Amino acid sequence: MNVTSELRLDDGVLERGFTLGEIPGILWTSGHAPAPLILLGHPGGLHTMYPRLVARARGCAAEGFAAATIELPGSGERPRSAAADDARADLRRRLAAGEPVDEVVDRLVLPLVDEAVPEWRATLDALLRLPEIDGPAGYAGGVIAIGLRLAVVEPRISAALLFAGSFVPRSMFEEARQVTIPLHVLLQWDDEGNDRQLALDLFDAFGSREKTLHANMGGHTGVPHFEGENGNRFFARHLR
Amino acid sequence: MNVTSELRLDDGVLERGFTLGEIPGILWTSGHAPAPLILLGHPGGLHTMYPRLVARARGCAAEGFAAATIELPGSGERPRSAAADDARADLRRRLAAGEPVDEVVDRLVLPLVDEAVPEWRATLDALLRLPEIDGPAGYAGGVIAIGLRLAVVEPRISAALLFAGSFVPRSMFEEARQVTIPLHVLLQWDDEGNDRQLALDLFDAFGSREKTLHANMGGHTGVPHFEGENGNRFFARHLR
Repeated sequence: MNVTSELRLDDGVLERGFTLGEIPGILWTSGHAPAPLILLGHPGGLHTMYPRLVARARGCAAEGFAAATIELPGSGERPRSAAADDARADLRRRLAAGEPVDEVVDRLVLPLVDEAVPEWRATLDALLRLPEIDGPAGYAGGVIAIGLRLAVVEPRISAALLFAGSFVPRSMFEEARQVTIPLHVLLQWDDEGNDRQLALDLFDAFGSREKTLHANMGGHTGVPHFEGENGNRFFARHLR
Repeated sequence: MNVTSELRLDDGVLERGFTLGEIPGILWTSGHAPAPLILLGHPGGLHTMYPRLVARARGCAAEGFAAATIELPGSGERPRSAAADDARADLRRRLAAGEPVDEVVDRLVLPLVDEAVPEWRATLDALLRLPEIDGPAGYAGGVIAIGLRLAVVEPRISAALLFAGSFVPRSMFEEARQVTIPLHVLLQWDDEGNDRQLALDLFDAFGSREKTLHANMGGHTGVPHFEGENGNRFFARHLR
């Protein structure tokens, strides 16, 4: 892991850009060492997502958590994948035409999960070696299928806050039954880009004994401010 | 309103039993006058429900709210209704036999709502005259159909926290569309006595722009402790 930039934000949070091999990432710490770590999931495109990510990271830091994120395969400044770009275009076309999307969701999401999850795990390896970071860790955000796979295969992830805002291959519902860590699922009830019934079915499928669904009104980016506080309280219960 | 008993609880909360005509009720205040009022809904049977009601009232008082409840028609020490008792027995029998319940739910719930809602409104009239109580008021709890009707007809109810744990007549879904106050709906995902799909449909039907659904694992009485805090924060946002 190479630190490529350092910036002290006005609230005292230290923001470090880093690369892990070819993967760019950002780490936010607040100086109260050692802190539990929250991995911030997102749909790809660190630059575009930065304002929302830094806001979430500041919220984490205010509660005494470190936060980190990495770029997804095929997004931002990472090499594009022609297959993923094709699948994404195909998904948009099918959604617009009202056609079934299961096959294209498989084609888009399964390779992404297979490629991204080892990268997030390698990021955990690197970050947990820093003296200012301490386990356990949590995962917060979309892509929900990445959070789901991490929850199953990565024992250092102790709790996950998942945004039900992207498609999940039907074949991953069996994996969902293997999830046992505490889950906090956010669903935007009127999310135009989301399948509400699929999100409810997925929530039902998770094997966790402690799982909570918070559904709010509004579209994809309309998550109410108070859900940030709820998320912090969820992680405070499970990462401390 | 006649005060029939006064008890100072160990945390300083003043508990007063009262009667409003023939209706017994309980008022909890914490001395920080004047406080917004939260009406505590319940399925009937003040004596049986007392431990849970007083716990909820203490939680309200700790946040600076007054809390009050009254006995439901036909419950506790109030005169029984043969029609309601018949309907309740019929409902149990049909549920056990896996038969449709819509007709019997209408027969049980609609008269209860028609009778109970004016009683809750009269209770509001009486309590809002006390110097230690101040508007606005909230409604928290089951029976969800009573909370729904109150939210439509009673302008002094500014926010409602509803337990999706009882049956709602299909004819009241039209009323649900008329609800505009902020709503916080609790759903026990595995509630054996509840119809999950009906609860989700009802949540969808509510006309409120701010509505949040919190679904948790477990049965009817298994609402997690942290939802009490969430409820208080909801009322703090809307009654202050």
